[in-house]
Amino acid sequence: MTAADVVPFARVGVIGAGAWGTAIALAALRAGRETVLWARNPDAVEAMRRERENTRYLPGVPLPPTLDLTTDLGEIAKADAIMLVTPAQHLRTACAKLQPSLRPGTPVVLCAKGIELSTGCLMSEAAEASLPASPVGVLSGPTFAVEVAKGLPTAVTLAIRDQELGSRIVETLGSRSFRPYLSDDVMGAQVGGAVKNVLAIACGIILGRRLGDNARAALITRGLAEISRLGLALGARPETLMGLSGLGDLTLTCTSLQSRNTSLGTALGEGRTLSEIMGERHSVAEGVHTSAALGELARRHGVEMPICRAVDAILNRNADIDETIASLMARPFRIEGR
Amino acid sequence: MTAADVVPFARVGVIGAGAWGTAIALAALRAGRETVLWARNPDAVEAMRRERENTRYLPGVPLPPTLDLTTDLGEIAKADAIMLVTPAQHLRTACAKLQPSLRPGTPVVLCAKGIELSTGCLMSEAAEASLPASPVGVLSGPTFAVEVAKGLPTAVTLAIRDQELGSRIVETLGSRSFRPYLSDDVMGAQVGGAVKNVLAIACGIILGRRLGDNARAALITRGLAEISRLGLALGARPETLMGLSGLGDLTLTCTSLQSRNTSLGTALGEGRTLSEIMGERHSVAEGVHTSAALGELARRHGVEMPICRAVDAILNRNADIDETIASLMARPFRIEGR
Repeated sequence: MTAADVVPFARVGVIGAGAWGTAIALAALRAGRETVLWARNPDAVEAMRRERENTRYLPGVPLPPTLDLTTDLGEIAKADAIMLVTPAQHLRTACAKLQPSLRPGTPVVLCAKGIELSTGCLMSEAAEASLPASPVGVLSGPTFAVEVAKGLPTAVTLAIRDQELGSRIVETLGSRSFRPYLSDDVMGAQVGGAVKNVLAIACGIILGRRLGDNARAALITRGLAEISRLGLALGARPETLMGLSGLGDLTLTCTSLQSRNTSLGTALGEGRTLSEIMGERHSVAEGVHTSAALGELARRHGVEMPICRAVDAILNRNADIDETIASLMARPFRIEGR
Repeated sequence: MTAADVVPFARVGVIGAGAWGTAIALAALRAGRETVLWARNPDAVEAMRRERENTRYLPGVPLPPTLDLTTDLGEIAKADAIMLVTPAQHLRTACAKLQPSLRPGTPVVLCAKGIELSTGCLMSEAAEASLPASPVGVLSGPTFAVEVAKGLPTAVTLAIRDQELGSRIVETLGSRSFRPYLSDDVMGAQVGGAVKNVLAIACGIILGRRLGDNARAALITRGLAEISRLGLALGARPETLMGLSGLGDLTLTCTSLQSRNTSLGTALGEGRTLSEIMGERHSVAEGVHTSAALGELARRHGVEMPICRAVDAILNRNADIDETIASLMARPFRIEGR
């Protein structure tokens, strides 16, 4: 697989010039591809052209002069492979704008994580409905954008049904420092990224309550079991859930203090209320919304997710933290793996 | 399972009064059992009796007056269930001393982690050979001793073939804060604990070389795949390896700076030599020996463990760190799950 005879695509288009989109564009450049990065805001594009830096989202990392910048989606549509870094709640709109100029067969790789709250759809479901003539893939894994941008070693899952096409995308993006592992499990590659933010809030609560590292490790383990149960119900394969997009991303998110979800959980665990915390923040931590959508998704598929349900209850139904933890701990002793 | 009609054992004996043995004794007391803790050294027992504290290994945690202390293995042999916290390299000797006074059928639960270097045996293999009339179990999971001693929430795997006996041990040790998950996969419950120290050294090297959190998360993920491959070859079940004794313990060890193995790896990654580091330490980090034994075990079972092999090469065969990392990163792009 991905042998010497796999031909990479020549030109990569990246939609979304936040930290992660910019980092992916830099990874594609580093792999030797022509790369064009799209941002909606002309002033932002102008500033990046002038300063050769994304000062707002990725300060301190130089943008090479070879990186093309555009506000024209038509420019992106001409690329051989498109990386779509649009957040879950805006994905359908972005696809609708892209669709008219897109050539049939051009692969579109989803690089953001989450659930579409209004429908409970995973992102590939929303994208496939909006872009029926495009093969849709997913790139997901343990990836702090700034580390990818700086060329620090990173491994991700690249999932797409057509494995020959997948091999070409792997060759297109892969380099010594950025290593995509190919998979055909598109559904499985999205589950970890959708659930991890909720579990990160739970980890934060444990930190804030000073319950210790043993408890956090147990939570990560039992949390991965929840990801697995949901994933299997959605048709994912176990090895995907235990891989970079599942276990890898969960570990990174739950053990880093950089995560907004973890820090939200920590503040809750320290005894502050959600409305107090929200009042001080510019943006809502993704896990707050996901926890509610996830509860609905789990119910629909008959999957037991006690930790995610507990986070939902604390965030959205005013449940008491200590009582919720106590009732999780008071469950009968269990057999492992069930 | 573990319903109201499961009768706990009345009296628990714990062999080994280091931090972990003392913590297990406190967990048994907290679960409401009579508990006797054995230490070899009469002065240590005398000091614990007098000060009601294990000042050397677990300072700051009071030992309740109800905790019995002894230097007499015969006292331990009278208990209904025995927790054996002896390190891997001394296990056979400890079993040989215990065996003459042990009643047939008394369960012996192994609580230390590692591989017997002289034979490549996992600990249950060594114990079963030495104690043919005793059912042997394994307790393993993400457990910093001091957190267990303080009663912070902790979950572990308790593995033993006889599940009825296992339920009694779970009821004997389990409380609100200490939660054993029952398993019959004795082999599987030992693999994680045996391999994790080697992977912790690898994580330390990544920290020391400042390669970033993405790289560490990828290493934990690919490291768990190595644990799984070895475990499956030894007859373990996947859910055990993905559970508390596998993934859980690996996560705890690899994300904590408290681990001696991680700090050894960090020093190596910062450019110091093994002999320099060893010269400053009183005790050898477990992973140094395990990495060599593991190489042999993996070869014997035809299992590919590239990360563990790389650690062995760096520690025991003078391999250059940067070249070793570069060659790991230069492997061809792969399909996830293989």
